[in-house]
Amino acid sequence: MKTSIGVGLIGTGYMGKCHALAWNGVKAVFGDGPRPELLHLAEVNGDIARKKADEFGFEKSTGDWRELIADPTVDVVSVTTPNAFHAEMAIAALEAGKHVWCEKPMAVALADAERMAAAAKAADRVAVLGYNYIQNPLIRQIGQILADGTIGTVNHVRLEMDEDFMADPEALFYWKSDASSGYGALDDFGVHPLSLLQVLFGRPTRVFSHLYKPYLDRPTSDGSRRAVETFDIASVLFELAGGTSGVMALNRSAWGRKGRIALQIFGSKGTIVYDQERMNELQLYVTSDKPTEQGFRTILSAPQHAPYDRFIPAPGHGLGFNDLKIIECHELLKKIAGHDARVIDFDIGLGIERVVHAMAQSHQQQRWIDVA
Amino acid sequence: MKTSIGVGLIGTGYMGKCHALAWNGVKAVFGDGPRPELLHLAEVNGDIARKKADEFGFEKSTGDWRELIADPTVDVVSVTTPNAFHAEMAIAALEAGKHVWCEKPMAVALADAERMAAAAKAADRVAVLGYNYIQNPLIRQIGQILADGTIGTVNHVRLEMDEDFMADPEALFYWKSDASSGYGALDDFGVHPLSLLQVLFGRPTRVFSHLYKPYLDRPTSDGSRRAVETFDIASVLFELAGGTSGVMALNRSAWGRKGRIALQIFGSKGTIVYDQERMNELQLYVTSDKPTEQGFRTILSAPQHAPYDRFIPAPGHGLGFNDLKIIECHELLKKIAGHDARVIDFDIGLGIERVVHAMAQSHQQQRWIDVA
Amino acid sequence: MKTSIGVGLIGTGYMGKCHALAWNGVKAVFGDGPRPELLHLAEVNGDIARKKADEFGFEKSTGDWRELIADPTVDVVSVTTPNAFHAEMAIAALEAGKHVWCEKPMAVALADAERMAAAAKAADRVAVLGYNYIQNPLIRQIGQILADGTIGTVNHVRLEMDEDFMADPEALFYWKSDASSGYGALDDFGVHPLSLLQVLFGRPTRVFSHLYKPYLDRPTSDGSRRAVETFDIASVLFELAGGTSGVMALNRSAWGRKGRIALQIFGSKGTIVYDQERMNELQLYVTSDKPTEQGFRTILSAPQHAPYDRFIPAPGHGLGFNDLKIIECHELLKKIAGHDARVIDFDIGLGIERVVHAMAQSHQQQRWIDVA
Amino acid sequence: MKTSIGVGLIGTGYMGKCHALAWNGVKAVFGDGPRPELLHLAEVNGDIARKKADEFGFEKSTGDWRELIADPTVDVVSVTTPNAFHAEMAIAALEAGKHVWCEKPMAVALADAERMAAAAKAADRVAVLGYNYIQNPLIRQIGQILADGTIGTVNHVRLEMDEDFMADPEALFYWKSDASSGYGALDDFGVHPLSLLQVLFGRPTRVFSHLYKPYLDRPTSDGSRRAVETFDIASVLFELAGGTSGVMALNRSAWGRKGRIALQIFGSKGTIVYDQERMNELQLYVTSDKPTEQGFRTILSAPQHAPYDRFIPAPGHGLGFNDLKIIECHELLKKIAGHDARVIDFDIGLGIERVVHAMAQSHQQQRWIDVA
Repeated sequence: MKTSIGVGLIGTGYMGKCHALAWNGVKAVFGDGPRPELLHLAEVNGDIARKKADEFGFEKSTGDWRELIADPTVDVVSVTTPNAFHAEMAIAALEAGKHVWCEKPMAVALADAERMAAAAKAADRVAVLGYNYIQNPLIRQIGQILADGTIGTVNHVRLEMDEDFMADPEALFYWKSDASSGYGALDDFGVHPLSLLQVLFGRPTRVFSHLYKPYLDRPTSDGSRRAVETFDIASVLFELAGGTSGVMALNRSAWGRKGRIALQIFGSKGTIVYDQERMNELQLYVTSDKPTEQGFRTILSAPQHAPYDRFIPAPGHGLGFNDLKIIECHELLKKIAGHDARVIDFDIGLGIERVVHAMAQSHQQQRWIDVA
Repeated sequence: MKTSIGVGLIGTGYMGKCHALAWNGVKAVFGDGPRPELLHLAEVNGDIARKKADEFGFEKSTGDWRELIADPTVDVVSVTTPNAFHAEMAIAALEAGKHVWCEKPMAVALADAERMAAAAKAADRVAVLGYNYIQNPLIRQIGQILADGTIGTVNHVRLEMDEDFMADPEALFYWKSDASSGYGALDDFGVHPLSLLQVLFGRPTRVFSHLYKPYLDRPTSDGSRRAVETFDIASVLFELAGGTSGVMALNRSAWGRKGRIALQIFGSKGTIVYDQERMNELQLYVTSDKPTEQGFRTILSAPQHAPYDRFIPAPGHGLGFNDLKIIECHELLKKIAGHDARVIDFDIGLGIERVVHAMAQSHQQQRWIDVA
Repeated sequence: MKTSIGVGLIGTGYMGKCHALAWNGVKAVFGDGPRPELLHLAEVNGDIARKKADEFGFEKSTGDWRELIADPTVDVVSVTTPNAFHAEMAIAALEAGKHVWCEKPMAVALADAERMAAAAKAADRVAVLGYNYIQNPLIRQIGQILADGTIGTVNHVRLEMDEDFMADPEALFYWKSDASSGYGALDDFGVHPLSLLQVLFGRPTRVFSHLYKPYLDRPTSDGSRRAVETFDIASVLFELAGGTSGVMALNRSAWGRKGRIALQIFGSKGTIVYDQERMNELQLYVTSDKPTEQGFRTILSAPQHAPYDRFIPAPGHGLGFNDLKIIECHELLKKIAGHDARVIDFDIGLGIERVVHAMAQSHQQQRWIDVA
Repeated sequence: MKTSIGVGLIGTGYMGKCHALAWNGVKAVFGDGPRPELLHLAEVNGDIARKKADEFGFEKSTGDWRELIADPTVDVVSVTTPNAFHAEMAIAALEAGKHVWCEKPMAVALADAERMAAAAKAADRVAVLGYNYIQNPLIRQIGQILADGTIGTVNHVRLEMDEDFMADPEALFYWKSDASSGYGALDDFGVHPLSLLQVLFGRPTRVFSHLYKPYLDRPTSDGSRRAVETFDIASVLFELAGGTSGVMALNRSAWGRKGRIALQIFGSKGTIVYDQERMNELQLYVTSDKPTEQGFRTILSAPQHAPYDRFIPAPGHGLGFNDLKIIECHELLKKIAGHDARVIDFDIGLGIERVVHAMAQSHQQQRWIDVA
């Protein structure tokens, strides 16, 4: 195996920094794999690019992302720019023979997502999306519990995702309320619980949706008000393969919720409950416990839940959000090295996008839509 | 005001005993109102009737409920028999000039519920349904918080009700899986969260449903298996007046859930969360707290939340499920005395039944149904 | 067995009403035992006595408690007056041949408690104290878990009791801050966790204490301030038989705590955690679960936890504080009928008082005190 | 300011890796300060040293820690070896003019801790201990709440620390049960809650302790059993300056507890509750909320709680245990740069050690001990 890998990073915002932290930490955490060489950082403003390159430990910087993609020493490119740029940058990187690690969602338009998936196939490079929540060791543990048959046959699934960054009705109108950003909560949020659904059960086969705008307009900086075009709330019914029934509720105007992604999975022998706001805890109810002593167990994340052990040898001490990105980065490196890896690649990601678009279509047509 | 009121009780099962406890306790708890005279108890088996009359403190007993209804000393009749008998007994009692306190749901068939409501109107007697969860002082507090505008304009409501008494796939087939009992979770469970919705927001105006059978058949006592005819799981989207979006999920095969009735109410200034399994706690998030110190408050039920104070003068000591029935009994007595009271009468109850039937119709027709 | 028992009640405050509710409900809940005949109620003010007798369902009332004790139809007397009167009334009732159900604590002075225990022995009547928290079915379940050896050998116990009715430093001085009421939190609160300790493990053998006054003085109604004489906070180390180590912390000025009585019981194979503010939940950790799936189980009270089943046939629906008093009343009746019963009688109660006094002595002498 | 700083690391176990992760991440997280140059890594086994240097990104490695200390390019040394080696290594590093970042506890013997503090003073170098729990942004927020007077005057403090790595009575005897390792839970655990106490209130002034061995002996690998010499359980009463009463309970054989460090801080206007197992949550009760809406608020860690914002711009997404070490590393760098910093230096650390030794002395002498 190569002992190092050249890394380029486009974008230095929320997710850009998150990728940078992962690239800085992954080798020390996992010990194995190539050492990431942090070579090139691109940010639209060249001065900021320089400053961030220094902070994040990148050797070079540029105000022109195409320069980064043209850099032959770069093997893999993190794309963390606003959604509208994902397709262009990811495709360019793939065509330049780079592996790509692109933030979710893939793209605003389905056609763009399709082009991205096609580009990844044509380039025969690794192209992975940033669905970090699937990397929580406890989400893997849920998968293990399901695979073991511990809760029997699953018959009902509930998903929720709620945050409150759009909850203030008097916050200024910004791009997330503009139709060019997509449907609203569906693509902004829905893809996260759908990514968990994907790794645990696969995609829904049929969906029915209702989208809702909590606020019809918002103030603008010039003192006028502008009509809101996206839906901050989405309510969805779905079916999984085999008919298992599901419900998904999304709300990005949910006061008090800060990073809630809640799962309830009901089976013929037990139940699993999870909430990302307590990401180091998993609730499990099984019927095999003594009747007087049955109850939901609160399982704390621990070294037994790989790869928690790579971070901390002691149980219950707690991983954080950024640690999930380090795990994702490691899975990406495994994939690049040709090993099996837990990633959502562009192909699977395209499948998730199709679900989102089916949900939007269902709202418009007010009927069940089969997912393509 | 009369100083006493003659009470008759039909049925001595789960709810029969619950009514008996309420009739025994209501005067001592509240101090006001007439003293209930426990006069007549009917149970299909005369021996059991006698035994239960002794236990519950009723003077007379009978194996024939019509005898009880013919008893001129009885002013009010508790009807706690299986759902199929509600209509016949309640109507007979009303026609005999009695007030009626009938357990939910009103009836299996909508036509029966309609006849009951008509009988109540014709008799000009008080006819109240046993929706005791609305009597929780914390549910009243939620109503107060909403009325005060503390969480602003409500834009999204989520309801869940889950228990696990149908969760074991190998439990014997019994009447709850027979189509003659109704739709399944919808009428068995759905009416409870709908009763909370009723007192907080009124009825949904439009519904879309998906019903699901977690188990297709169940064993019978003769060793064969019988097809399940009712739906233990129901998933519902709804709209409230004004368009507010809602989701309701019901599951009576939800392992580990024992009496969960969960509410999440999102508004423009805050959020309310409640779970009946922790019926003495209420979660409230408001935006008026200092930013560094905002969080969901866990409010414990207390004397400030009337009528908790009638039970216990100290806060946080906890009411129980049976206490809610005592409050309901007191509201019934207030209503009989001609005062305002927090009850679901046959008229409002019929409205809830219409919602349930609209939900069932939506499942059959796979489309949104406007509630009649 | 006698089919009825004559009941007298002295006192109509917080605990007086609680006893009244129990006497009204016990027969309907449990079905067995004699029917309580509510005969005589005494309250220092004769008008209030009359009013409360009507509300609580007692036949006669008096402003002179000695009249009640002289009433030959009364078989058992509930003593629910302020602590200072317990000894005089309980002893008089016992000497008159009545059974006695007296609220805790027994008495302010140890000598009085000793006289009460002696009177009970001399009278050969049942004399029971109102330690209702031991009656929670989940506390019984803890006892069962310990007896089964499920958590192995217990090596460490932590007790806490906290409420906030003395937390406001500007609340007016009242009798609980006067030395004549006792030591403070120790006797006011400490006896509750000690009653739980009693039924689960027996009494401490050795104690070390530190008492503390959060507020040195309080306002009085005439605008002056008066020095506080009792200790609202107590911190205690103790040993159980065999040397097991324990800690107890009490605080009746603990803002936000409303009825917290918390237990943590650590053993060689598991741990039990309980909090009275969530009296329908029990936490249990056992090492026999699969390593990846170990966690504290939240057990909801259920019919399997007798006598929950006498109140509600469905699990997880929740008992309330007043229900514990009904169970206590039933245990009293069992004891009177000559059966084994789960009660703290005057003898055991005296033992608890001795522990409290040893704790106070330890604070004064600043050394470990062996419990007499 | 220098743009880089030379880093040496001694030890590659649990804490060695934790330091390595911090050194790798600190610059990218905080952006400011010098870039750590990872220069030299020492581990007793030279092969492991080489392997870990590669994993952790250190340039050189050695099997002889004195070589590292002699390396003139190294400016700061992380000492993460077993406690017995802290004094020798830290003093050598200080004498060689290096800054030192040494894991807690300082040393087994008080005399060693005193020598370390003296060496730091003599060398005029920064010497900081690894008390990372104080770095949690929510612990800082607790400090802010106290400083703001939000909960008024504190009158009672409870501390608990519990884990279960010594809970299995049949686990093999290892060095933590050997008296040469110290007293047991007191020094192994007690220093953590004491570090929190230190930054929030300062040191206790007076202590009373009781130490306990849950298991008298343990199996050894040769099949015999060996007497346990240390105390896995400690129970402590203490006073803070001004007399405020406190309780501390420690148990490293507490089944089910994985990283519990619990605080309860009671004041004249409110209460703060914290548990490290839910390190992203803080409970706050204040009396200024409306009476019907008062309750403990669950505050989720958020960008408003600096320096959470350096890790994640979104609230409620969760920091992890390792992130606290990154913050600690940043505080160390601030201190080295001559700025104010939130650290426990050797001087303050010595003060904490004195408290621990006073506690041990109290147990031996069974009396209150004033802390030196």
